Amino acid sequence: MKYVAILGCGVVGGGVARLFTERTERIARAVGEPVQLKYILERRDCSGEPWAGLVTDDFSKIENDPELTVVCECMGGVGAALTFVRRCLKAGKSVVTSNKQLIAEYGLELLGLAKEGGCSLRFEAAVGGGIPLLRPLSEDLAVNRIDEVFGIVNGTTNYILTQMIENDRGFAEALSEAQALGYAEADPSADVDGFDAQRKLCILANLAFGSNLPPERVSAEGIRNVAAEDVACAREFGCAVKLIAHAGRLPDDRITALVAPRLVDLDRPLASVNGVMNGVVVRGDAVGECLFYGAGAGRMPTASAVVGDALEALRHGDRSPFDWGEERPERFVDPETLPFRWFVRWEGETPAGITEVCADGGHGYAGISPAWTRAQLDEATAGRRVLSRIRLLE
Amino acid sequence: MKYVAILGCGVVGGGVARLFTERTERIARAVGEPVQLKYILERRDCSGEPWAGLVTDDFSKIENDPELTVVCECMGGVGAALTFVRRCLKAGKSVVTSNKQLIAEYGLELLGLAKEGGCSLRFEAAVGGGIPLLRPLSEDLAVNRIDEVFGIVNGTTNYILTQMIENDRGFAEALSEAQALGYAEADPSADVDGFDAQRKLCILANLAFGSNLPPERVSAEGIRNVAAEDVACAREFGCAVKLIAHAGRLPDDRITALVAPRLVDLDRPLASVNGVMNGVVVRGDAVGECLFYGAGAGRMPTASAVVGDALEALRHGDRSPFDWGEERPERFVDPETLPFRWFVRWEGETPAGITEVCADGGHGYAGISPAWTRAQLDEATAGRRVLSRIRLLE
Repeated sequence: MKYVAILGCGVVGGGVARLFTERTERIARAVGEPVQLKYILERRDCSGEPWAGLVTDDFSKIENDPELTVVCECMGGVGAALTFVRRCLKAGKSVVTSNKQLIAEYGLELLGLAKEGGCSLRFEAAVGGGIPLLRPLSEDLAVNRIDEVFGIVNGTTNYILTQMIENDRGFAEALSEAQALGYAEADPSADVDGFDAQRKLCILANLAFGSNLPPERVSAEGIRNVAAEDVACAREFGCAVKLIAHAGRLPDDRITALVAPRLVDLDRPLASVNGVMNGVVVRGDAVGECLFYGAGAGRMPTASAVVGDALEALRHGDRSPFDWGEERPERFVDPETLPFRWFVRWEGETPAGITEVCADGGHGYAGISPAWTRAQLDEATAGRRVLSRIRLLE
Repeated sequence: MKYVAILGCGVVGGGVARLFTERTERIARAVGEPVQLKYILERRDCSGEPWAGLVTDDFSKIENDPELTVVCECMGGVGAALTFVRRCLKAGKSVVTSNKQLIAEYGLELLGLAKEGGCSLRFEAAVGGGIPLLRPLSEDLAVNRIDEVFGIVNGTTNYILTQMIENDRGFAEALSEAQALGYAEADPSADVDGFDAQRKLCILANLAFGSNLPPERVSAEGIRNVAAEDVACAREFGCAVKLIAHAGRLPDDRITALVAPRLVDLDRPLASVNGVMNGVVVRGDAVGECLFYGAGAGRMPTASAVVGDALEALRHGDRSPFDWGEERPERFVDPETLPFRWFVRWEGETPAGITEVCADGGHGYAGISPAWTRAQLDEATAGRRVLSRIRLLE
């Protein structure tokens, strides 16, 4: 018999509790012996839940129970969650978490604590929700030099952009709908300004490239400035506007990371990732491009990934499978210094070098630039009113 | 130091040898200690290759070397490969293989031998080439009840159908092009008649549902009868014709498996899996639908998966992660007894119950039936000349 605990029994924690209590046979088969959920750390009243008898508000019970080998952190944030995760790892208990903020900001430290504690830290659910992504990237593709990892990692913004693309909504209207459906928060900033995607990209980039890239080094642009006219003009030349988190390795082994709206060719599989779904492409030098697609959020998809990680930690809990690496600031390149092709919408004369594609239905025109840095783009469009500039994904 | 051997140094084996000899640092980091390629079993002359010094034609050296813990089988077929894999597993050496025929036909026996030998058998490369798919399905998604697994698992037929869809080729012309490009064999039967997909679907179904489904119980229809008119009419109502391998669990827990051309709605991600690429959807009850997409064949993608498996066997070689299960023939349902909606093309009067969609440009018409078994379809179309009948994927 093996034993697990859950910290926090909200949306995700409740799903994890449900899987551990309802799927005992399947879990025993996967681990090779029975697994019992022993404690749930929660202050809220859980009476009425089938697992009410497991609830405790005393963390030290979990920390000091020698039978307990794996702890699932489902509290979120970097307050108590950080304290408890540190203490679990120091006590030699493997930790599984869906907490992207915790991993993006403290991943290096926590992986080090796991190593010292002879246990492991896993966080599949922190990026792409239920989609198996981080472990395939880190283990199945381990022999590859990863050259690029990019995709759609925020379901809220993807829902909004899909509504703009498919139903000709404006940004504000699509946001209101997303809020009414519970896909967006009352304060939508973490999603629409790209901060959620920024943290997830950090994690992806650190696993792919083995450099401890801090969140503040990842440039993030959100989708507030994407206009209905941009979406319509993008369609005219066979592209969809998507919020893309992209990290790449340059030929000189430096790395760059950017969250920003991008024009994605409709022929590419990422362009078909619609609604609240997520999709991430990993490009390795041996395997080529792989895409991983599925539900990027939600109670049961996220719980599926947390429990998948827990089963692996129960089988092989002595070592984290991630090659996160030390911080090497000299390796990071600001994407503003790199050339991109830009979709530009402007009023006035067509700027030299830009190929006009269409009129935007109002007073503006839209076109595509050659590969330019932002400074070159600014220079070429000087004197016009620039309505939009969105990088192409190539 | 750990040691591995390769059986067979053809296209895939050569790629595996290259990764093991060129990626020593990356491999040591992934395994936790250095790994050395010790033998390559091959009769052909390999002089000139950097690994020529490792080549032997004496299998007993490999079988009897106590240092050797993992063997990569890259010979193919079920002759010598089967004999050698059995002997490796009995000798307690974990085996990694890309051999779909071997696993589809002997998977149950070989997994049993691995268990008895205290070692493991892995075969990620046997389905979907380089795409991480079987391990995510079996481990990351282990807590899910899998309800469906389906997709495009044969790159040759997908290339041919993509040419028919995008460039208005007929089947014969697209096949000739695929042969000229080396995507199809001189005798293309294994691909175009669905036998390759049939073996891969066996493996997927057995991992997903834990039943030892033999290849001959999987119905297979190929793409020889897909006409240019079918592709054009399918486009008229927003679908692409794809060769889909599909295995599903019925509400009564029986299972069904079918390889056949299907009409796939263009909004679904599978419809964007084009050219020689593969894509497989796994539907689990907690996670929902996940899609895994990438290169389904080719030297280095396949070698990436073989080496990924070998690294995992070097880390944790004592247990295969698969829940294959015993054969339970009473669980298999013949898809011919199940209802499908059909795309039908006919000459003559519109059959009752079928909604006409378009004329095919010649003498025929095309439409969609309600959910009917094949017998119901035959009855409804009696007296007409039926030119095509293709199931919808729903």
